[in-house]
Amino acid sequence: MIAAKGYAAQNAKAPLAPFQFERRDLKPHDVQFDIHFCGVCHSDIHQVRDEWGGSIYPMVPGHEIVGRVTAVGDHVTKFKVGDLAGVGCIVDSCRHCESCEQGLEQYCLNGNSQTYNGREQDKKTPTYGGYSNLIITHEDFVFHIPESLDLAAVAPLLCAGITTYSPLKYWKVGPGHKVAVLGLGGLGHMAVKFAVAFGAEVTMLSTSASKEEDAKRLGAHKFVLTKDADQVKAVKGYFDFIIDTVSAPHDYNMYLGLLKVNGVHICVGAPPTPAEIGVFNLLGSRKSLVGSNTGGMPETQEMLNYCGEHNIVSDIELIPMSEIDTAYERMLKGDVRYRFVIDMSTL
Amino acid sequence: MIAAKGYAAQNAKAPLAPFQFERRDLKPHDVQFDIHFCGVCHSDIHQVRDEWGGSIYPMVPGHEIVGRVTAVGDHVTKFKVGDLAGVGCIVDSCRHCESCEQGLEQYCLNGNSQTYNGREQDKKTPTYGGYSNLIITHEDFVFHIPESLDLAAVAPLLCAGITTYSPLKYWKVGPGHKVAVLGLGGLGHMAVKFAVAFGAEVTMLSTSASKEEDAKRLGAHKFVLTKDADQVKAVKGYFDFIIDTVSAPHDYNMYLGLLKVNGVHICVGAPPTPAEIGVFNLLGSRKSLVGSNTGGMPETQEMLNYCGEHNIVSDIELIPMSEIDTAYERMLKGDVRYRFVIDMSTL
Repeated sequence: MIAAKGYAAQNAKAPLAPFQFERRDLKPHDVQFDIHFCGVCHSDIHQVRDEWGGSIYPMVPGHEIVGRVTAVGDHVTKFKVGDLAGVGCIVDSCRHCESCEQGLEQYCLNGNSQTYNGREQDKKTPTYGGYSNLIITHEDFVFHIPESLDLAAVAPLLCAGITTYSPLKYWKVGPGHKVAVLGLGGLGHMAVKFAVAFGAEVTMLSTSASKEEDAKRLGAHKFVLTKDADQVKAVKGYFDFIIDTVSAPHDYNMYLGLLKVNGVHICVGAPPTPAEIGVFNLLGSRKSLVGSNTGGMPETQEMLNYCGEHNIVSDIELIPMSEIDTAYERMLKGDVRYRFVIDMSTL
Repeated sequence: MIAAKGYAAQNAKAPLAPFQFERRDLKPHDVQFDIHFCGVCHSDIHQVRDEWGGSIYPMVPGHEIVGRVTAVGDHVTKFKVGDLAGVGCIVDSCRHCESCEQGLEQYCLNGNSQTYNGREQDKKTPTYGGYSNLIITHEDFVFHIPESLDLAAVAPLLCAGITTYSPLKYWKVGPGHKVAVLGLGGLGHMAVKFAVAFGAEVTMLSTSASKEEDAKRLGAHKFVLTKDADQVKAVKGYFDFIIDTVSAPHDYNMYLGLLKVNGVHICVGAPPTPAEIGVFNLLGSRKSLVGSNTGGMPETQEMLNYCGEHNIVSDIELIPMSEIDTAYERMLKGDVRYRFVIDMSTL
């Protein structure tokens, strides 16, 4: 076993604290890399605090992981020592179900292995995430990172990036489309960047007037303050797509009213309580309410290559490991532009 | 003006009763036809009883109308006297909005003219439906009916038929797809017939074991009794599409669980109260909850032609006009296989 160190939660109430643990020995298809940066996802907080139930402790969070390869197993063909490498939300899957065969490992029918707060495919061994100094992962679940990009700002692409890239691709968003992005946070700011890059007209919908300047800086063409009834009325039936990144309860029916005939409301955030949907609001103009969750391995690599070609990264605030609790508190207040990334050299 | 007779509701509480009224004189593009048969849609009851609000009285219901042309305006090119003719849910639309230009008059952005309980495009003149002896409609909103089909059984195609045909086409349902039909009534039995004709494997989902024999006779390959937890469990994650024809409140989340990754739950019925949707149920496997409402003019004609080629009609119970109240009472108990059609010669 290989000695590793990181930050872990020992239970739902304890703050994150230094933690010594072991990673598995390198297997023939494994890649080992030193973690240089790890993004901080809102789901880290939910899981550390066991807000979704079933959390596994001790928990080393983190699934936006980038670094440089330090060792490879005997049969590894895709990576060599010194390569940049990344790991996202999952580290393994069954590999033989209908979803896995299509490269949709995020929808593995037999249960994939989440990067942390999950279990390996033996369904026993717990997984430990990226708030640590190194990781060992099967090469099929490790991504190549373009050397041209700011590595720290790449980290959030592994979750916030792919979670917004994937549905925009699946629903073929592009030139001629009017796209609204709901919520300007980690996911929302990436949705703006990708939708703009794909050639759509992008409007930020926000409850906060203070977001307008930033939304436009990120590339949004328009801004609608959703607390202003007149501004909302002016975009009734206007959008082909809404990318909804909001995880708090909100009024889906109001937003469905902003869609055109055949419009699609894409949820990448989900509130903990059921949403009340007026089904007539879907029937009336052949509208769709859909959901999408991260992305598969081929598509995540495609997204990283696309970001390399188009110079797209996240807007981040780099923090030392010791400030993680402060970062969580600020995230809960929406006070981050737009993703905290941990500098793992501070561990 | 042209004298017409029919059955009308004078208010939300009164039973339907004989009614004398006037239709407009034939304009250059109008087609006049004698109504031979008119289907009885569940929405007739809702509107007669003002259950959706805003009902216009006196109301002559009926939007599944077939008959034979008796006169045409000077500029009519599409019909001649003696032709079979049909009128469905709408008799006019703005004709120039984005929807109308695409042949999606059912989603007219300026408000189409419903066949009854609506108003002409002058937004004043009330429309009167098919529980009557004749109708006068612009030729663009009149359909050709294949002579080969049983005319009485064609009538329900104008609403129940197109309402199920249209979404199956829009979402490209065909060979290799597993389709569930939820609810075996006027819409459900047409959904079974079309989905089978399009080459899908079709499963009827019903709360009533007594529907199994009929579902299979209509062409369904499988039957699942949704009150039986084991039968439901066996089709978890099984379907590509659910066609949901149910208008009573029901548990959408249970049905979403029966869809595969990328599965689509298509609502053609809608409950009067909001549906509680667990958005995580959409995200988890990239599922869609969508709605669809009737069909446009080009697609309705396409559907009628398809039915002529494939010998598809509705299963009906023919009734005299005088039995309409009894028919309504039986429909409210689900006691009709599967559509009442009024023989207008009995008027």
